[in-house]
Amino acid sequence: MTSLPSHPIGVFDSGVGGLTVVRALMDRLPFENIIYFGDTARVPYGVKSVATIEHYTQQIANFLQQQEVKMLIIACNTMAAVAADKVRASANVPVLDVIEAGAKNAVAHTKTGGIGVIGTPTTINSNAYARAIHQLNPACRVYSQACPLFVPLVEEGWLDHAVTRLTAQEYLKPVFVESIDTLVLGCTHYPLIKPLLMDICGDRMQLVDSALSIAAQTAEILQSRGLANPAHQIPDYRFVVTDLPVKFQTIGERFLGRSLGKIELAQL
Amino acid sequence: MTSLPSHPIGVFDSGVGGLTVVRALMDRLPFENIIYFGDTARVPYGVKSVATIEHYTQQIANFLQQQEVKMLIIACNTMAAVAADKVRASANVPVLDVIEAGAKNAVAHTKTGGIGVIGTPTTINSNAYARAIHQLNPACRVYSQACPLFVPLVEEGWLDHAVTRLTAQEYLKPVFVESIDTLVLGCTHYPLIKPLLMDICGDRMQLVDSALSIAAQTAEILQSRGLANPAHQIPDYRFVVTDLPVKFQTIGERFLGRSLGKIELAQL
Repeated sequence: MTSLPSHPIGVFDSGVGGLTVVRALMDRLPFENIIYFGDTARVPYGVKSVATIEHYTQQIANFLQQQEVKMLIIACNTMAAVAADKVRASANVPVLDVIEAGAKNAVAHTKTGGIGVIGTPTTINSNAYARAIHQLNPACRVYSQACPLFVPLVEEGWLDHAVTRLTAQEYLKPVFVESIDTLVLGCTHYPLIKPLLMDICGDRMQLVDSALSIAAQTAEILQSRGLANPAHQIPDYRFVVTDLPVKFQTIGERFLGRSLGKIELAQL
Repeated sequence: MTSLPSHPIGVFDSGVGGLTVVRALMDRLPFENIIYFGDTARVPYGVKSVATIEHYTQQIANFLQQQEVKMLIIACNTMAAVAADKVRASANVPVLDVIEAGAKNAVAHTKTGGIGVIGTPTTINSNAYARAIHQLNPACRVYSQACPLFVPLVEEGWLDHAVTRLTAQEYLKPVFVESIDTLVLGCTHYPLIKPLLMDICGDRMQLVDSALSIAAQTAEILQSRGLANPAHQIPDYRFVVTDLPVKFQTIGERFLGRSLGKIELAQL
């Protein structure tokens, strides 16, 4: 099956976080059709075994390819860390993932070679960012810091709250003593607290937002492969989830920065 | 099959939280054998459908009855809210649950009839504490407050941290303006921040710890049914989980207040 420029971009995550990637894509590529898939029935992936994560990730990639996506974007750090290679090996469309995108952007921007990465404990323990960064430039020094409370704080909506500020100061304290000029937001929830993090970091370091990185790389790939949608009309956005928790709509719209519209339920 | 006093007490939870109940049982009933079952492969239950929670809960209750427990304790608020009646209907041993235990204790202690309940969003949304309290005394007024950040804060180990203090002050602000003299800790994680909560509440209200309530009720039931273990020797403690995440041992020992020893893996 040949991909057409009118085909949608497929973006997927274990839950709601990948909507920050969709938001970045909507801003960067306002004429592209997008299907978002959130595996809300089986979230969180971080606590599952590698075999299970690979299996679930492949199921979602297959589902999206059946919807004739022209490109796959893994907007979940856990899936990217564990299963990106498998998806790439079997997919017949280009595959981008948040870890590779964030790593590329960090390596391109660092001047001193000192890169910090913040993420969930699962992402940090996987060491996937450090591997991706070193694959691009072995001279870089990577300092990783798990920030387990950021996801619950973002989901609570405390985006500019004294508690979040105090928590961020605590987590970033060890990062600040390292010689780092670039900090990768290694979790799709973190763009929502970017203003607060920028405020705390001041001019100590620049932030790399994987969602923006992936949107920029998507634009390049679509252009270079002649897959950019030439139709300049309102695009079609689909949001597919495997379960519809009460909070999905509320939290989802906060992540997306706009209304979600109709949400479809799918069984894998 | 007849229960013997030497048979163990079966305690279960979706994860690690129910270990605070085990800790209270160890302190109150130091000669009782205990089996703890944590369904760590399928945690968290809060996001799952009622049918799934009922099914999983029944599987665990059956597993523990196959281990010849003389009593079942549902040490998980989600399972207690959703599936306690089903477990009671099918079990051939006494069944206690944290919600009923907390509600009984709160009703027994309130002087003004004003009872506050704090818990996870799932527990609070289920309204199970309010129902259990009203079943015991319809004159009570119940004020419920979800505290989504307490579980991640406890799991982060920030038990006496400025962030936790600030978060608790924020969550308890609306509780303090209600006429409440008794506050139920409606989550098995909360006993770990009881000192901090007591400090913030001061003499405004007394705290009801469901773990202590259930240990007291267990002692009564064992006594009245002639099921208390007469052997005054070191008891046997078993800890069974469905998956062994790295953090289970660390967090578990913090919850239990002592070493976990060997942890068994089981498939349901």
